[in-house]
Amino acid sequence: MDKSSRPHIYLDYSATTPIAPPVVEAMQPFFSETFGNAASAHEYGRNAAAALDEAHTVVGCAIGARGSEIVFTGCGTESDNLALRGAALAARRSGRGNHIISSPVEHHAVEATVEQLHELYGFDVTMLPVDGCGRVDPDDVKRAIRPDTTLVSVMLGNNEIGSIEPVGAIGRICRERNIIFHCDAVQAPAYMPVDVDVLNVDLLALSSHKFYGPKGSGVLYIRDGTPYIPALTGGGHERGRRPGTVNVASAVGTAAAIKYVSAQRDEQAARLRGLRDRLFEGVLANVPNARISGHSTDRMPHHASFVFKDIDGETLLMALDVEGIAVSTGSACTSGNPEPSPVLLAMGVPREWALGGLRITLGYHTTSEDIDAVIDALPRCVQQVRAAAAELPGS
Amino acid sequence: MDKSSRPHIYLDYSATTPIAPPVVEAMQPFFSETFGNAASAHEYGRNAAAALDEAHTVVGCAIGARGSEIVFTGCGTESDNLALRGAALAARRSGRGNHIISSPVEHHAVEATVEQLHELYGFDVTMLPVDGCGRVDPDDVKRAIRPDTTLVSVMLGNNEIGSIEPVGAIGRICRERNIIFHCDAVQAPAYMPVDVDVLNVDLLALSSHKFYGPKGSGVLYIRDGTPYIPALTGGGHERGRRPGTVNVASAVGTAAAIKYVSAQRDEQAARLRGLRDRLFEGVLANVPNARISGHSTDRMPHHASFVFKDIDGETLLMALDVEGIAVSTGSACTSGNPEPSPVLLAMGVPREWALGGLRITLGYHTTSEDIDAVIDALPRCVQQVRAAAAELPGS
Repeated sequence: MDKSSRPHIYLDYSATTPIAPPVVEAMQPFFSETFGNAASAHEYGRNAAAALDEAHTVVGCAIGARGSEIVFTGCGTESDNLALRGAALAARRSGRGNHIISSPVEHHAVEATVEQLHELYGFDVTMLPVDGCGRVDPDDVKRAIRPDTTLVSVMLGNNEIGSIEPVGAIGRICRERNIIFHCDAVQAPAYMPVDVDVLNVDLLALSSHKFYGPKGSGVLYIRDGTPYIPALTGGGHERGRRPGTVNVASAVGTAAAIKYVSAQRDEQAARLRGLRDRLFEGVLANVPNARISGHSTDRMPHHASFVFKDIDGETLLMALDVEGIAVSTGSACTSGNPEPSPVLLAMGVPREWALGGLRITLGYHTTSEDIDAVIDALPRCVQQVRAAAAELPGS
Repeated sequence: MDKSSRPHIYLDYSATTPIAPPVVEAMQPFFSETFGNAASAHEYGRNAAAALDEAHTVVGCAIGARGSEIVFTGCGTESDNLALRGAALAARRSGRGNHIISSPVEHHAVEATVEQLHELYGFDVTMLPVDGCGRVDPDDVKRAIRPDTTLVSVMLGNNEIGSIEPVGAIGRICRERNIIFHCDAVQAPAYMPVDVDVLNVDLLALSSHKFYGPKGSGVLYIRDGTPYIPALTGGGHERGRRPGTVNVASAVGTAAAIKYVSAQRDEQAARLRGLRDRLFEGVLANVPNARISGHSTDRMPHHASFVFKDIDGETLLMALDVEGIAVSTGSACTSGNPEPSPVLLAMGVPREWALGGLRITLGYHTTSEDIDAVIDALPRCVQQVRAAAAELPGS
């Protein structure tokens, strides 16, 4: 392919998004002009604090929460960490119990944190089963609950396979039993509504760079009254819930970004669902031994994911990259030592399929032509990679 | 005072700095153009990863470290937390011991973390004494060390009283005994050199917004081989030492900022020392019952701090704010319930002086006229506040 004509098609919006122009614009005054430390008592500090207050209110409003229940953090992963560590340790200290329930399809931020809470801090952990689409059955949550259960964590939209979990129903079960419920909703807000009361969550994590806001900026929702010990300690910023000088520019950017996506979410979701479904059809019709991973309809509208039999997803990703198309495996593969995705294995996907995961996530800038290009290139790339693998000794 | 003629004099550079114009410029391309997730394998990801690699190298270079020893975090407080929690827990897990040594003049990020490690995680803690200038004697570190000591944390330049601690000497003592040494150097890099080998540190925390870089961006130096368990968990970013999608714009901004300050540090330090010393003289000559807090010469060159007898520092701060001069108390006072600064009390400052702390910190934009304005306004403000207090019933 002529390098100059190589397209640049970004279809990895679940990994990160560009910052939207109105968001960049909203942030600019807070770099060098309104630069005060929001904790300072003087005019510079009060100006920063006023902008920060407004950002709390806007973000709270967008997810059905009070501004005082919003904590700005350094990233979505930090939000998950603060939520899980904070609630688990607080519940244990008050003698409520030592048992955590989670799922095998959670993002690393939850999975690795639950694992450390088990290994280093001695919490008991129950992993819920998931169905073939990676979904938790609320009845399984009921069954897993013990008298000493204090915390349940199940995500909203799955980053790897797109399925939407029955969060509202799980939350109701937890609430009836006075168990703290945390939800990683990082993938959701640009593509589906997030309302803390509809979801029945006590703790919820968002990440600005997944919804056209800045990187290095997360949101943690803490419902009033939720037991919580800060797992990072220092000054009394964010009402004592997250220390460190608040990044006012990013808080303002996060507020601008959530406004930006709230205003066009329904329209974009419908548009992207149409493009995504066309992508599903085009790929399944043109690539042999291809399947959708995750639920085919009850999934985030921008999210397509596949498994291809007898193929290494990482190699396929690189073949598409050569064609100028940026996608993801959606798995934790590392080149040279391919391991099947634990999420796919938990769903019961056989190993010869689970190595060949591919995630194609659309976004607000995705065009119909981008989808045409993938439908054109993907069958060719799959064939190339399979042919190359067949030529290897031992294949 | 006519509101329109009210000046805007910012003298709280130890609280935060504006981002320098070349730093803002360096960050811009990473908002919406080179926006990839540095963990992505495709072209967008590789472009981001290349910029991130370069930022690691530049920051490492500036403090005498390898790029691979630099971890970008969400703020200086997070850096301190990761350092202390990571080293303490790793050393304990390996059976090395359970004893931490720190000082009573540390920033909240260290103080509150050491406190939580004691209260929640059962570490033993020894607090070092400090002299009348808030400085630790290295011989006291020697005396405090026990066979089960694993971690010592002493800051470089004190945020509240400006004194410089004998970090290099303390580090040598720790190294000889195979004890991990952490240093909060957050206040230093714009005003004095920071070299990890001169300081003999294993762990060191920086915060970009204290040296004309972005807020929401910290640096954690981890010397190769230092025992460390990540206290935040998730994906394998930053070589498994700090999870969460890396904020490439801020990493690039941090690199640009450290270059910016390194290039003019000596010149600015000399200039600011001159202005600061003139401020000392002007204030001591014109305000009765005023003293310098901290060391008068062995202190950061941009940092002036005072105690005024029989005055509430917070009220004085607000009086200066009315004059258009932004400073800090440097203490943890909260209006209405003034408590003397624990740092000043640890130094032996009597209570009637310790309530009246004031911190005036200069920066690269500070002019001689700014200093004149303070020397003019401060004696008047002190007199006003003392007069008002004298009129209160019970005074």
